[in-house]
Amino acid sequence: MEKHALLYEGKAKQLYTVDHPNMLWVQYKDVLTAFNGEKQEQLLGKAQLNNDISSLLFQQLSMENIPNHFIRRLSETEQLVQKTTIIPLEVVVRNVAAGSLAKRLGLDEGEPLKQTIVETYYKDDALGDPLINDDHIRLLELVSEERLLTMKRLALDVNHLLIKHFNICNLKLVDFKLEFGINPEGMLVVSDEISPDTCRLWDLDTNEKLDKDVFREGTGSIGEAYQTILSRLKGAVEKGI
Amino acid sequence: MEKHALLYEGKAKQLYTVDHPNMLWVQYKDVLTAFNGEKQEQLLGKAQLNNDISSLLFQQLSMENIPNHFIRRLSETEQLVQKTTIIPLEVVVRNVAAGSLAKRLGLDEGEPLKQTIVETYYKDDALGDPLINDDHIRLLELVSEERLLTMKRLALDVNHLLIKHFNICNLKLVDFKLEFGINPEGMLVVSDEISPDTCRLWDLDTNEKLDKDVFREGTGSIGEAYQTILSRLKGAVEKGI
Repeated sequence: MEKHALLYEGKAKQLYTVDHPNMLWVQYKDVLTAFNGEKQEQLLGKAQLNNDISSLLFQQLSMENIPNHFIRRLSETEQLVQKTTIIPLEVVVRNVAAGSLAKRLGLDEGEPLKQTIVETYYKDDALGDPLINDDHIRLLELVSEERLLTMKRLALDVNHLLIKHFNICNLKLVDFKLEFGINPEGMLVVSDEISPDTCRLWDLDTNEKLDKDVFREGTGSIGEAYQTILSRLKGAVEKGI
Repeated sequence: MEKHALLYEGKAKQLYTVDHPNMLWVQYKDVLTAFNGEKQEQLLGKAQLNNDISSLLFQQLSMENIPNHFIRRLSETEQLVQKTTIIPLEVVVRNVAAGSLAKRLGLDEGEPLKQTIVETYYKDDALGDPLINDDHIRLLELVSEERLLTMKRLALDVNHLLIKHFNICNLKLVDFKLEFGINPEGMLVVSDEISPDTCRLWDLDTNEKLDKDVFREGTGSIGEAYQTILSRLKGAVEKGI
């Protein structure tokens, strides 16, 4: 397998075509961004951390038969995925109040939520990825009614699975964002990445933040935080869990 | 009927108790506010305009059997309503892109919407009345699942009725906000007011704005705009429509 043309460059990843028309080569970047790209930093080793973490988490999804785009890890910073048409929606699942939810509803950060919250955001950098509701999704024709329902159900399934898995790693899954795509077979699959860039993860005992909030809030070493996540995930794998 | 103690003072109205425990005396104020109270102005005659417009519109609702809090107009600036427990949600219905919807989704103001949009906002001045979805409503326990459905259905019924009625008045109903309350019999009723403070209304032929946007945008005489609405509504009544 060789990578060919650069198809797309995002804030944290590059996508290349390969010989196979239904696959893409993902190159993770040593870049951290936050606040819709307003805060940006180089971080040596970040590509490898997120590639490894995301690979391990997508493997968990596959083991539980949750359709996703991951094919295999190619190198320290690269992975092979299915080529998908991305649905311009971010599906966010929340278990604990934090970030924009705490701000929107006036909740205290860290407050456990009595019920799991699913939110949809319109993937549009120029608009600042606004929160939207089902009527907005219908108006913009972002995805069919049936697929929207499936996306929300899959997001809740992923939440269930990841809560359990992170719990083994002594981590609390506060919230996370998923993206979905349609693969060449026309199937809805979890796409993009699953990493501390896209999940809020706190130490289960101390509530220490081990995700991108460390970067957003400038409160510590992001490299150490992400390394902690990776080490704990690897520990779980080695224990055969 | 006499008014007694001041029960509540809002930005545009005062509510007084009366002898009957299930009724309230509404005193409209000669005050205009926008941007969550940041812009505020006195406007002589505004209380009368909104009291008259809202009275006429609530009578239309009653004629179409849409449950609402309105009992009767008491004077130029006062009306009698059912005492209700207000549900802390604003239900917004939109037919044409304008205001926060245009901004949120990147639509051009004036673009007719292919489908009617219903939005829910959390009535909380300190939080800036944020857009929320059904999961947020469940989490905050703002209203039961069944009543939320009824609120949305009633809002669409009111939209249908008002579009027709304003059309007779050569007015385009761009969007509007409703509030709901639970009356002493435990019934869900449309509450608050229905006026150019809470509806976007444009001239059907010229698209001239005749609502609070004239004040928000500082583009003309708000008194004249509201007077135009009232005159046209009265004209429709006189024609027996």
